[in-house]
Amino acid sequence: MKPIIWSNFKLNLLDQRLLPIEVKYIECNSFIDVAECIKSMVVRGAPAIGIAAAYGVVLGAKEVYSNDKIKFEKDMQRVFETLASTRPTAVNLFWALSRMKDKFYSALHNDNDNIITLLENEANDIFNEDLELNKKIGEYGAKLLSNKCTVLTHCNAGALATAGWGTALGVIRSAKEMGKEIKVFADETRPLLQGARLTAFELMSDGIDVTLISDNMAGYVMKLGLIDAIIVGADRIAANGDTANKIGTYSLSVLAKAHSIPFYIAAPYSTFDLNIKSGAEIPIEERSHEEVRQIFNVRIAPENVKVFNPSFDVTPNENITAIITDKGVIYPPFEENIKIMR
Amino acid sequence: MKPIIWSNFKLNLLDQRLLPIEVKYIECNSFIDVAECIKSMVVRGAPAIGIAAAYGVVLGAKEVYSNDKIKFEKDMQRVFETLASTRPTAVNLFWALSRMKDKFYSALHNDNDNIITLLENEANDIFNEDLELNKKIGEYGAKLLSNKCTVLTHCNAGALATAGWGTALGVIRSAKEMGKEIKVFADETRPLLQGARLTAFELMSDGIDVTLISDNMAGYVMKLGLIDAIIVGADRIAANGDTANKIGTYSLSVLAKAHSIPFYIAAPYSTFDLNIKSGAEIPIEERSHEEVRQIFNVRIAPENVKVFNPSFDVTPNENITAIITDKGVIYPPFEENIKIMR
Repeated sequence: MKPIIWSNFKLNLLDQRLLPIEVKYIECNSFIDVAECIKSMVVRGAPAIGIAAAYGVVLGAKEVYSNDKIKFEKDMQRVFETLASTRPTAVNLFWALSRMKDKFYSALHNDNDNIITLLENEANDIFNEDLELNKKIGEYGAKLLSNKCTVLTHCNAGALATAGWGTALGVIRSAKEMGKEIKVFADETRPLLQGARLTAFELMSDGIDVTLISDNMAGYVMKLGLIDAIIVGADRIAANGDTANKIGTYSLSVLAKAHSIPFYIAAPYSTFDLNIKSGAEIPIEERSHEEVRQIFNVRIAPENVKVFNPSFDVTPNENITAIITDKGVIYPPFEENIKIMR
Repeated sequence: MKPIIWSNFKLNLLDQRLLPIEVKYIECNSFIDVAECIKSMVVRGAPAIGIAAAYGVVLGAKEVYSNDKIKFEKDMQRVFETLASTRPTAVNLFWALSRMKDKFYSALHNDNDNIITLLENEANDIFNEDLELNKKIGEYGAKLLSNKCTVLTHCNAGALATAGWGTALGVIRSAKEMGKEIKVFADETRPLLQGARLTAFELMSDGIDVTLISDNMAGYVMKLGLIDAIIVGADRIAANGDTANKIGTYSLSVLAKAHSIPFYIAAPYSTFDLNIKSGAEIPIEERSHEEVRQIFNVRIAPENVKVFNPSFDVTPNENITAIITDKGVIYPPFEENIKIMR
């Protein structure tokens, strides 16, 4: 099941809000459609957001194309800004838009006639590269797991969050491919239940042994000695290794430390934001309070109850055992080793 | 809103599974009705379960009453066993049944004619005493909180879990009554959402400032420095202070320690089980997997996904700052100080 399908200048996005109950694609014909789908989390997962935004740029360029270079450039600025303003935390969005912007400006300045095709090729490259990166992350990460191993994961850093294969789940898939016996505990991941809906679904489809738990059971499961490693994805990693990921990741990292369980981040190198020194500079998105008050449109709390709904948290580098990237596994001291890997 | 209403040999239990969406009472006319309501969590919360079971004994005695003492005793054994087998973890259930059993046998051996009335009085005593105990817990606990204080709580240890006032929420209520400025963060408490449904509802009804969060946000909220103290209830406390409480409590205690936040248990002294040395001996109930796969009958995960659903976990005594009881506040070393308090 593919989260992102590009064909004939239409972007079809699998509506991940409905999975696994309903399988439905939403067709985007304009950059505004794509921006809406990113904002409302039809498409989610840091790498997938980047890919969708890249195709959004292609659609936008086609929409606002003009022989008047000044007008075209101005309109394209609006396309880039609209797509960039959808979600603040995942850096892959800005990284993908920046690649598309570079391509756009070089083509514009060279008076290239086939600018739309060039942008389409660039978006396709971002898509195809992501799949390759995931396979490399999987290979590097799988070596860290013992032959018989139970992994706890949070949210969905799987095929649905990427061009395919996945980051955290990519490591699990690669380990299975290597013949390792891998079991998984999946946190359900409130409020949007990506673990219950997407991770459980993906792993079951692949025949990987998965057990679903509520988020608040993770510590107890660790205490029972059931977990050998924790692997999660990332939305943005600062130059010192501090990592923003789905809310709840920070708690897991503290619990992992208390139980001496290795805690791994799996992410493509494009998830690093070397412009920021530490996690303190990562903007944390707060989303609608209804996400907490309701589940699948069913009210579960008093109608007007005050809510705090940060969508992400930051795990400090000292809680991270290693960061598994497409360029290799990065160990502490992170600040030095992240730079070296560049 | 009263969770337990006894009148005219009918036990009316507020159906807490439907709150706050629907307010509905279930009328119990037999001990089997009461046992079913405890099992299915119409009534929940350790002290409330004990009270309901005590009234269940009264209903049972009325049902199986016989002038044939041997037959009566045998049938009452079945009543006690049925009520005892409803839920394994909360010790207040067994404590209340044991009180009722003592009363029953002493009346039986004394050939007392008004045995039903004696049992009814004993159940009323358990009910009324609980309310008093909660007020005492509240008074002792409130002194531990500073004048301006934000408390994190988990599940519902409130008026709905007791005869009224509450244990953990009783402390908050008493602190407010003393004029302290108390704010509360309430974990929603998956799978059955007692925090979102009951705690948020209770506190809002009392005009206490409450903010609802998903369970996985608790660590991040602590890291942001928003929490001054954590107070939770208890289902059973071993002789060494190890405490069984709603699943997720253990994780909170680890997070509290990592953030140097005081972690308090609030419970009546009847929650101690001095027959067991440590938490390792507390039986942990595992409940239906559908509780995790569904929320309010809405499916949120693949239909056949494997689930682990422990309803409780055990917090080791070293993670507990103090235990607030009706007899006073117990500090470490718990093993000694719990005995002294007896």
